[in-house]
Amino acid sequence: MADSHPLPTNDEVRGYFKEVSNWGRWGADDSAGTVNLITPEKRRAAAALVRSGRAVSLAHPLNTVGGPGNMNPAQHFLRIAPAFCVDYIGLIFHGYAHTHLDALCHVFWEGQMYNGKPATDVTSLGARSGAVDAWSQGITTRGVLLDIPRLRGVSHVTLEEPIRGWELEAAAEGQGSELLPGDAVIVYGGRPAFMAANPMAVPGMPPSPGLHVDCAPVLRKHDAALLGWDMMDASPSGYDVFGPGLSVHVLTIVFMGLPLLDNARLEPLAEACRAENRWEFLLSVNPLNIRGGTGSPVNPIAVF
Amino acid sequence: MADSHPLPTNDEVRGYFKEVSNWGRWGADDSAGTVNLITPEKRRAAAALVRSGRAVSLAHPLNTVGGPGNMNPAQHFLRIAPAFCVDYIGLIFHGYAHTHLDALCHVFWEGQMYNGKPATDVTSLGARSGAVDAWSQGITTRGVLLDIPRLRGVSHVTLEEPIRGWELEAAAEGQGSELLPGDAVIVYGGRPAFMAANPMAVPGMPPSPGLHVDCAPVLRKHDAALLGWDMMDASPSGYDVFGPGLSVHVLTIVFMGLPLLDNARLEPLAEACRAENRWEFLLSVNPLNIRGGTGSPVNPIAVF
Amino acid sequence: MADSHPLPTNDEVRGYFKEVSNWGRWGADDSAGTVNLITPEKRRAAAALVRSGRAVSLAHPLNTVGGPGNMNPAQHFLRIAPAFCVDYIGLIFHGYAHTHLDALCHVFWEGQMYNGKPATDVTSLGARSGAVDAWSQGITTRGVLLDIPRLRGVSHVTLEEPIRGWELEAAAEGQGSELLPGDAVIVYGGRPAFMAANPMAVPGMPPSPGLHVDCAPVLRKHDAALLGWDMMDASPSGYDVFGPGLSVHVLTIVFMGLPLLDNARLEPLAEACRAENRWEFLLSVNPLNIRGGTGSPVNPIAVF
Amino acid sequence: MADSHPLPTNDEVRGYFKEVSNWGRWGADDSAGTVNLITPEKRRAAAALVRSGRAVSLAHPLNTVGGPGNMNPAQHFLRIAPAFCVDYIGLIFHGYAHTHLDALCHVFWEGQMYNGKPATDVTSLGARSGAVDAWSQGITTRGVLLDIPRLRGVSHVTLEEPIRGWELEAAAEGQGSELLPGDAVIVYGGRPAFMAANPMAVPGMPPSPGLHVDCAPVLRKHDAALLGWDMMDASPSGYDVFGPGLSVHVLTIVFMGLPLLDNARLEPLAEACRAENRWEFLLSVNPLNIRGGTGSPVNPIAVF
Repeated sequence: MADSHPLPTNDEVRGYFKEVSNWGRWGADDSAGTVNLITPEKRRAAAALVRSGRAVSLAHPLNTVGGPGNMNPAQHFLRIAPAFCVDYIGLIFHGYAHTHLDALCHVFWEGQMYNGKPATDVTSLGARSGAVDAWSQGITTRGVLLDIPRLRGVSHVTLEEPIRGWELEAAAEGQGSELLPGDAVIVYGGRPAFMAANPMAVPGMPPSPGLHVDCAPVLRKHDAALLGWDMMDASPSGYDVFGPGLSVHVLTIVFMGLPLLDNARLEPLAEACRAENRWEFLLSVNPLNIRGGTGSPVNPIAVF
Repeated sequence: MADSHPLPTNDEVRGYFKEVSNWGRWGADDSAGTVNLITPEKRRAAAALVRSGRAVSLAHPLNTVGGPGNMNPAQHFLRIAPAFCVDYIGLIFHGYAHTHLDALCHVFWEGQMYNGKPATDVTSLGARSGAVDAWSQGITTRGVLLDIPRLRGVSHVTLEEPIRGWELEAAAEGQGSELLPGDAVIVYGGRPAFMAANPMAVPGMPPSPGLHVDCAPVLRKHDAALLGWDMMDASPSGYDVFGPGLSVHVLTIVFMGLPLLDNARLEPLAEACRAENRWEFLLSVNPLNIRGGTGSPVNPIAVF
Repeated sequence: MADSHPLPTNDEVRGYFKEVSNWGRWGADDSAGTVNLITPEKRRAAAALVRSGRAVSLAHPLNTVGGPGNMNPAQHFLRIAPAFCVDYIGLIFHGYAHTHLDALCHVFWEGQMYNGKPATDVTSLGARSGAVDAWSQGITTRGVLLDIPRLRGVSHVTLEEPIRGWELEAAAEGQGSELLPGDAVIVYGGRPAFMAANPMAVPGMPPSPGLHVDCAPVLRKHDAALLGWDMMDASPSGYDVFGPGLSVHVLTIVFMGLPLLDNARLEPLAEACRAENRWEFLLSVNPLNIRGGTGSPVNPIAVF
Repeated sequence: MADSHPLPTNDEVRGYFKEVSNWGRWGADDSAGTVNLITPEKRRAAAALVRSGRAVSLAHPLNTVGGPGNMNPAQHFLRIAPAFCVDYIGLIFHGYAHTHLDALCHVFWEGQMYNGKPATDVTSLGARSGAVDAWSQGITTRGVLLDIPRLRGVSHVTLEEPIRGWELEAAAEGQGSELLPGDAVIVYGGRPAFMAANPMAVPGMPPSPGLHVDCAPVLRKHDAALLGWDMMDASPSGYDVFGPGLSVHVLTIVFMGLPLLDNARLEPLAEACRAENRWEFLLSVNPLNIRGGTGSPVNPIAVF
């Protein structure tokens, strides 16, 4: 199979930067990126997918235990008074532990971010462009789970075989799910099974399994609005242009203007899809309204 | 009109504790409360409400500016590296500034919380019952906005005239929206207009306008699943049993087991309802999955 | 008396920038500023001041109650386990509530900070120059309290009469305390008595009582190493060059390279000085070792 | 040598609880513990030790990098405005990374803390007894470094040979430093050298090198006021009464009422002592004034 899907060359990958770009597509000052593809009509169609009413969360609990893979444990403290109690949440949500949404200002490439905005638009007080509040009205759309272990007939993706772009299409086809503009594409790689089989692996410390960079042009071709994933970028990417850095993050966030739903919890969703025998659903991702923020912790909910 | 709707007596209010109680209704160890009323069928029916696809947020931006009315400003800091940026969010979300959901462990009454659980189930590490993770699969249901200023023909509710229970029904009827079991009832009082007209008022410092305690039995009668509001409890309540404390908070959270969506931002929603000429919509409230947490900051999204 | 001490003219004040400057005095890359004046010999002499052994703190408790004057309340939470308990402290210490030390990177003037370093040396990750870790070995020196209410025969300084530079010398002389190089000069203005007499005043909201800008050249003349104060800058300064901003902060931090001990609690110290009939003492200010930090919360201790 | 210093038996160790106890010694409501031993006269004598004026910090920089050994990295963020910058510090200081002082409420034993106070005196809002604000006037006293690697002629203490009580006295004698009531006893074990030689060791994860429980009665015999250390408790203790828990922590904090200075940075101090050929100095430990707090991050300063 690999033979019929040769890896892209260095030059081909360098061509992706232009191929996937959405810079200027929604105006010079746009900060919403591919979320623009989620029209009222798209939301209407997504709501029409609901049949059984089953609801499934795509979020892990906030992880308060520091250690390898969770360098920034969430702080959670309760304060208890005689008649009530409150809590304090302190969180650096980026990284490899907490389920969160990346805003378009989160990643820079050669001093620029999405839409060609300068990285200097980001200050310690907040980002002047590409911030998460561009999505303050929520992200409600059709979600499609692409179950790669099911496609491959294995329990999890391995370091040796990153998830390829053609596999996204093959998984969709195998599930009978056409990829449509404005979709939230959710790619399941089987991270817990991988971690169980690789107990010394540390999330965020390469080598890491995950999506090959050639997934980016496939997402662009189908005009996906969001990418959710449990495994993140295969790293190192194998392409010198990215050096030791992330590849899919750069192409999607900076060039496509596509939000990433990192560290999604996908086993329950994969199980629900198999039980429902449907891999599409209404998905609501409601990021907190954080002015100038680089993303948000989220609890995305799929309704079947 | 007030004549035909006399205020309940002290004794009548004391009777509410039993009248509205859902203790034991969903089992002795239930922590989800009225969210149990949101069945898969209810979610299906809620999704079927979507017609125009318009999406509206019910959340204020996190308020980072301390001052009267915001004693616990959100902390928001960005850390900027050459190739990316991250942020830190630190938040005590309860109070009168941030849009948030109250879990059932948030309020105690005479040493107990919802379902008769002891307040000692709450520790500094988290609550053993009534915690927000009981709703980790999200709250997706039919929302109904009750626009009280519209009902009254004014811009905002006043201190002198709290929102009465009968007005909830009158507003629903006037809008052609039947209140159904499992609904998220959103009560708009016009808080910004009130604040503009009362510049020395401080949110959370009585006297405060809002809902009269006789709203609680009305919510119970219609088996509401959630109460969203901008004004919160009319305070002081006028009933000695509550002393200087909150009345609706106690009856809904502790006795009904009904989650509150506090400090909702309702002008955009009220405007959308008037524009759509519909006061019902699909509502998704996706609290963060915080183990043992007393609630969550949220960005609830209505889709018409 | 005021006649014999005319206010400096605008031109005279503009001259202060050059007059007080220590730029380059301790090398082009110095970040310690006037703390360089605290030599081992100075510490030895300071320790020799100890006679009675009385110890007095110059710090307020961390203020956890938000409100006017404390826009950034300290967060303090305990987490209680069966065999131990821990706490979390979250703090923005700058401002007008918490006793803290200002590092030399805290204030900029026309894009520069102390020693002519560019403000761009400060990043969201920390300051590359002028950071508090320049003082990681602590500040142990001779402290001298200048008790201005005692000098004036009043309970507190007023808005109308800021503390003048000549008064610092007059107070020292009246107390029999010569001002020496490397001293920590602690200026008591009677802030609690002022606040009691001006209940609507809000710390940090001009008009504010405090030190007139002509204190800066006096501190420079005597080569003070640190300025501690309860009232901070008289504001507005009355000099157009500073606009609505702070004057003493700019001249001391940016041009002298002199650390400020803001919001010091000085009543107990003033009482101890009067009881001991001595206004000099060993002072230890031990800022936390925060790499790249803009200052530190502190609990300075005077020993008589 | 070990033969002449047999390990105490289980019964002997059980006797320590009574032997070292200071409960009631300074009154039934005392929260200051052995800091009561630091009299004004003691402070006077400590200041008289200053000769060269050399100042040395005993603190590590706050550690902001999460990982094994630092489960709760300090959060440090700068916020940069045009004319100034501020920072936010968020910290759980207990554990094995940050230099901090333990208050007497930090540890419980069978539901009690120092002075027989119930553990229930600690609430999520703060401790009603044994809190760090009992030491709000600072801890200024004579410090004595006991350099165990120097005594043993090695670079660091090992897992096999914990630091024994008799060694504290032997080190003091070898250095010509009599241990006196009210002293801050600082025990250097060579933690960095141990970590370099044991790269897979994780601070706080037993087995850990450090002080044998028989150090406690020696500290009590000499009426030490504070124990500073880099290695902490040898763990496991080898005595069943402590189970898998800490031994020295329990005896010193709960029974002696003696504050611990955990994770002290002692190489620079050990070097300074060797260079000065003196192992005693003025020590100032100025904990932040945190009402009800379980301790404080500190930057203790030794002056020779």
